[in-house]
Amino acid sequence: MKKIGILTSGGDCSGMNAAIRSAVRTGLSKNIEMIGFRKGYLGLIKGDYLVLDNKAVSGILQRGGTFLQSARCEEFKTEAGRQTALENLAKIGVEGLVVLGGDGSLNGALALHRLGIPVIGIPASIDNDIAFTDMALGVDTALNNIIYAVDCIKDTASSHARAFIIEVMGRNSGYLASISAIASGAEYAIVPEADYDLADICSQLRHRFQEGRDNAIIIVAEGAGHAQTISESIKDAIGFETRVTVLGHYQRGGAPTVFDRLLASRFGKRAVEFLLTGESGKMVGLSCHDIIVTPLEEVVKTVKRPQEDMLRMAEMLGI
Amino acid sequence: MKKIGILTSGGDCSGMNAAIRSAVRTGLSKNIEMIGFRKGYLGLIKGDYLVLDNKAVSGILQRGGTFLQSARCEEFKTEAGRQTALENLAKIGVEGLVVLGGDGSLNGALALHRLGIPVIGIPASIDNDIAFTDMALGVDTALNNIIYAVDCIKDTASSHARAFIIEVMGRNSGYLASISAIASGAEYAIVPEADYDLADICSQLRHRFQEGRDNAIIIVAEGAGHAQTISESIKDAIGFETRVTVLGHYQRGGAPTVFDRLLASRFGKRAVEFLLTGESGKMVGLSCHDIIVTPLEEVVKTVKRPQEDMLRMAEMLGI
Amino acid sequence: MKKIGILTSGGDCSGMNAAIRSAVRTGLSKNIEMIGFRKGYLGLIKGDYLVLDNKAVSGILQRGGTFLQSARCEEFKTEAGRQTALENLAKIGVEGLVVLGGDGSLNGALALHRLGIPVIGIPASIDNDIAFTDMALGVDTALNNIIYAVDCIKDTASSHARAFIIEVMGRNSGYLASISAIASGAEYAIVPEADYDLADICSQLRHRFQEGRDNAIIIVAEGAGHAQTISESIKDAIGFETRVTVLGHYQRGGAPTVFDRLLASRFGKRAVEFLLTGESGKMVGLSCHDIIVTPLEEVVKTVKRPQEDMLRMAEMLGI
Amino acid sequence: MKKIGILTSGGDCSGMNAAIRSAVRTGLSKNIEMIGFRKGYLGLIKGDYLVLDNKAVSGILQRGGTFLQSARCEEFKTEAGRQTALENLAKIGVEGLVVLGGDGSLNGALALHRLGIPVIGIPASIDNDIAFTDMALGVDTALNNIIYAVDCIKDTASSHARAFIIEVMGRNSGYLASISAIASGAEYAIVPEADYDLADICSQLRHRFQEGRDNAIIIVAEGAGHAQTISESIKDAIGFETRVTVLGHYQRGGAPTVFDRLLASRFGKRAVEFLLTGESGKMVGLSCHDIIVTPLEEVVKTVKRPQEDMLRMAEMLGI
Repeated sequence: MKKIGILTSGGDCSGMNAAIRSAVRTGLSKNIEMIGFRKGYLGLIKGDYLVLDNKAVSGILQRGGTFLQSARCEEFKTEAGRQTALENLAKIGVEGLVVLGGDGSLNGALALHRLGIPVIGIPASIDNDIAFTDMALGVDTALNNIIYAVDCIKDTASSHARAFIIEVMGRNSGYLASISAIASGAEYAIVPEADYDLADICSQLRHRFQEGRDNAIIIVAEGAGHAQTISESIKDAIGFETRVTVLGHYQRGGAPTVFDRLLASRFGKRAVEFLLTGESGKMVGLSCHDIIVTPLEEVVKTVKRPQEDMLRMAEMLGI
Repeated sequence: MKKIGILTSGGDCSGMNAAIRSAVRTGLSKNIEMIGFRKGYLGLIKGDYLVLDNKAVSGILQRGGTFLQSARCEEFKTEAGRQTALENLAKIGVEGLVVLGGDGSLNGALALHRLGIPVIGIPASIDNDIAFTDMALGVDTALNNIIYAVDCIKDTASSHARAFIIEVMGRNSGYLASISAIASGAEYAIVPEADYDLADICSQLRHRFQEGRDNAIIIVAEGAGHAQTISESIKDAIGFETRVTVLGHYQRGGAPTVFDRLLASRFGKRAVEFLLTGESGKMVGLSCHDIIVTPLEEVVKTVKRPQEDMLRMAEMLGI
Repeated sequence: MKKIGILTSGGDCSGMNAAIRSAVRTGLSKNIEMIGFRKGYLGLIKGDYLVLDNKAVSGILQRGGTFLQSARCEEFKTEAGRQTALENLAKIGVEGLVVLGGDGSLNGALALHRLGIPVIGIPASIDNDIAFTDMALGVDTALNNIIYAVDCIKDTASSHARAFIIEVMGRNSGYLASISAIASGAEYAIVPEADYDLADICSQLRHRFQEGRDNAIIIVAEGAGHAQTISESIKDAIGFETRVTVLGHYQRGGAPTVFDRLLASRFGKRAVEFLLTGESGKMVGLSCHDIIVTPLEEVVKTVKRPQEDMLRMAEMLGI
Repeated sequence: MKKIGILTSGGDCSGMNAAIRSAVRTGLSKNIEMIGFRKGYLGLIKGDYLVLDNKAVSGILQRGGTFLQSARCEEFKTEAGRQTALENLAKIGVEGLVVLGGDGSLNGALALHRLGIPVIGIPASIDNDIAFTDMALGVDTALNNIIYAVDCIKDTASSHARAFIIEVMGRNSGYLASISAIASGAEYAIVPEADYDLADICSQLRHRFQEGRDNAIIIVAEGAGHAQTISESIKDAIGFETRVTVLGHYQRGGAPTVFDRLLASRFGKRAVEFLLTGESGKMVGLSCHDIIVTPLEEVVKTVKRPQEDMLRMAEMLGI
């Protein structure tokens, strides 16, 4: 293998740049030419790329986002689109590909593998909803971003008698909501994996307030309900003032944490190494202390289940 | 004067604790007994207070919020409520009062002054909408909180082709929105003081995107429109993906900046000194390098006008 | 068991408060009375303690340090001292003890266990030099504190042609130095576990500078040499300007990261649960996803070996 | 004027990039070609420059340091060196120059002005030791960097009975030390402007410790003594454990605060505007709310005096 491509696809996250840097430096150290495609699969289709030397990836380790950019690409979901991508890869001489992204992006990687392109995926998704890796890239940074904001809100919460509703990311996954609730000492986490009864929460809140515990922080995963709606329900039900924060894309950015920088560095390095040893159609993942590989076929059809023990601990600690 | 009370009222802000600490240490150094009322004017009415010694204000300088807590108090707006407050002050032996808060709180302070209680106000409001002070307490911290979040969003914005709408505080004031837009390099600031034409903004955005500048950050003061509504309008008008962040009370909290710690320390110290020299019915304020006092009567009837030059600079710099 | 004591000993770290909170809430939820001893083993000897109810541990989750304080205690190393401690425990009615700390503190815990007091240890040491746990409490926060500072220094490093020497903690352990070097993209890590040749480093630096790479960041574990001395050697050897930063106790403090808050919550909960199931003389530890227990006897006689693979990755990535 | 150059010289600081961006955007909006010289005056002498368009200054507002880099340049202090600089300016067609830096850099700017080159200086120095401006660029960020670290150290300080000595920048100026001491609630500030008696401080510390106030934070300006030396003196004198932190270049970096971003934006804009209205040999400065200009001749011969009132307040608040 003489030329390896890399691209970032889907929602970006902190640590993608660090992973690109590590993949590039690993490739260069083995005399591989490294190519970066811009805007995910769109770059494959448009043939939009740049050559990545050591300098191109210098000073990006600590930057959030992805300097290769990301985009949705409907065209890549068509056969014609993928054919164009294949042709471009052949034209450029790229013999292997590293793809960073979440579920959708890994599905795309699997499609390329089936078309004969050697490809290794790197799980990158702040929702931590990708199976066969303990943690996806960007999760630890997103969690720390969230608790930085919640800590600020706790300052003001303890100054007032109010309920604060904080919406975090997670369409199908309550991971960010439940873990950040434990880590911030929030009173409730509302997640898509578990049914919740707003009337019951309101009744508990009323009870708390009567006991003199007159403020509460409620963290809601976006997939479980809109903060604004929940806020109004609580206000109507118990007559208490409520305040809403929607953290949005704030969660995705910022300098990556040490954990994400290390994970990114290990993922990037191993992805290139696996390509060079002939692996394809697989995803790198973290299993305890080790970097493992799992067939993408397995990955995309497996649903990650929530950590039951974490939810139980949350209850005990006061959530 | 032998006993001075202090209370925090209205929306809390970062720096209130530092101001309480400074007022208490100044009073104690002059052998004044210092009393803290809990939950603002409610504490006056309920006679809910604690004695503040050096230890009580130790370790609070760097904490956001107010450890004396704050609350709305409808009862204090009635004559009966104020009479109860007066009686409690007399019973406790409090001969002077320091009140921290925004417009409403300073109105309350003026009422007490008219009833014969020596009172000095400290402007504390992250909106920076209080006249006769260059900066109110909490503004600098709120601004730095905002740009911390916007910097994170910029990471992700530069990774995608999208418009990001960020809602910041400011019901009647676009101060936070306009200054944070300049400081973060946002593309637009939507403020209550100026009319805006969403169709015009959409047309500019479309133009920008056609030029290849495919992401934009728009900061909206809550008083000028809801982020969610503006987001949907933009999406409908130009077919571009938009994302919403509502910073909410995140802006109020966190460790105060150096500026707010110094301002708080100076305000707290001078407020007590002014009481001791017989002043009353006045508010301390920052005027260039000096701490000035202005009659509360003037303060509450004066509207602070926006800084025209800042808005002009914003336009030139790309907003 | 009706009454459990808890104490923090040795160097403090971020997350101790979160662990105390979790232990207390776990104990209270099982109707155990919880007792906090002040200043580590000194509190045992002096009988200096406070009763910990839910409120006592409210609002401490996010605070660095330990509100129970810590201290060295030479007296506890004597038989007489330990006898006094035993008598005090009996007098107060404490039937089990949770001890947070590093090597020395865990040795003390082992001694108490041998004297018949049920005791469970929690590994807390930013050096991550305690065996039988993947991570000790405080390590993740310390690492993130370090890279926050190094990121700042990189800003200025890339503005100048200079070598920056940054001293981090680690008397016998290069863990913080090597991991933070990888995570920050530093050029060298100097650690106590490996010999280094300053002349060789200088020669490499000179070579780098001749190639136009005119700045370098060198992270030194305190146990491997003093930043000031190394700085002067480099300056003398290659005539280049050098600058020194000694991070010192900055590394120990600050709000704990999400990782440390979760780890602390799990350690605190399990420590109390193990005591209640009759375990003693053991330390809780993290092994992959699980909390395990290991006899303190094993813990204190085992030396944790550095992660060879991390050091190799460091080299490849440019260190 | 058709072409304006800009350079950053001396020690870098946070906000330099924001000032360059503002100067460039202001120039471009008036159809001026903007040129950036690399590594300060060295770039003038070597003719090392790049053309700065809108894109070149995009995304740098929030970055610490200076992307134009800085360097010492002995050659520029000679007549021959300056002559070469003049010739290069003429060759490139640069008709005016904006210089960012501290005392030495402004001296260089004055020299160029005397040689006939229109030049405007921008005060940039974290020491805040430049006269005729309330604040120099980078000071507010440096102060906030310092208190971030000191807040962390306070966590650990309150956990132990120890004295912590923290060395901050300031060779001839105690500004950073005294202001950060007030803002962090430190017990002592040791500054070059005032004599201090270490024996006296030790005696006070001993007294404090006897009263049970068993930890203390002492902030030392580098120009007033070395943290290590002071630490050992205190340890020897009172037998107490001491710990040292040397913040070093950590203080210079990091994302600029809102204050520094605004100040930078105003300085950069006005510097170019002043050049275009024919001003030369002057420095922009902040005077209350206004940007003023002062002849460089005045600036370089005036010593900024410390703020006496701040030092007095420091004493009252417990320093």
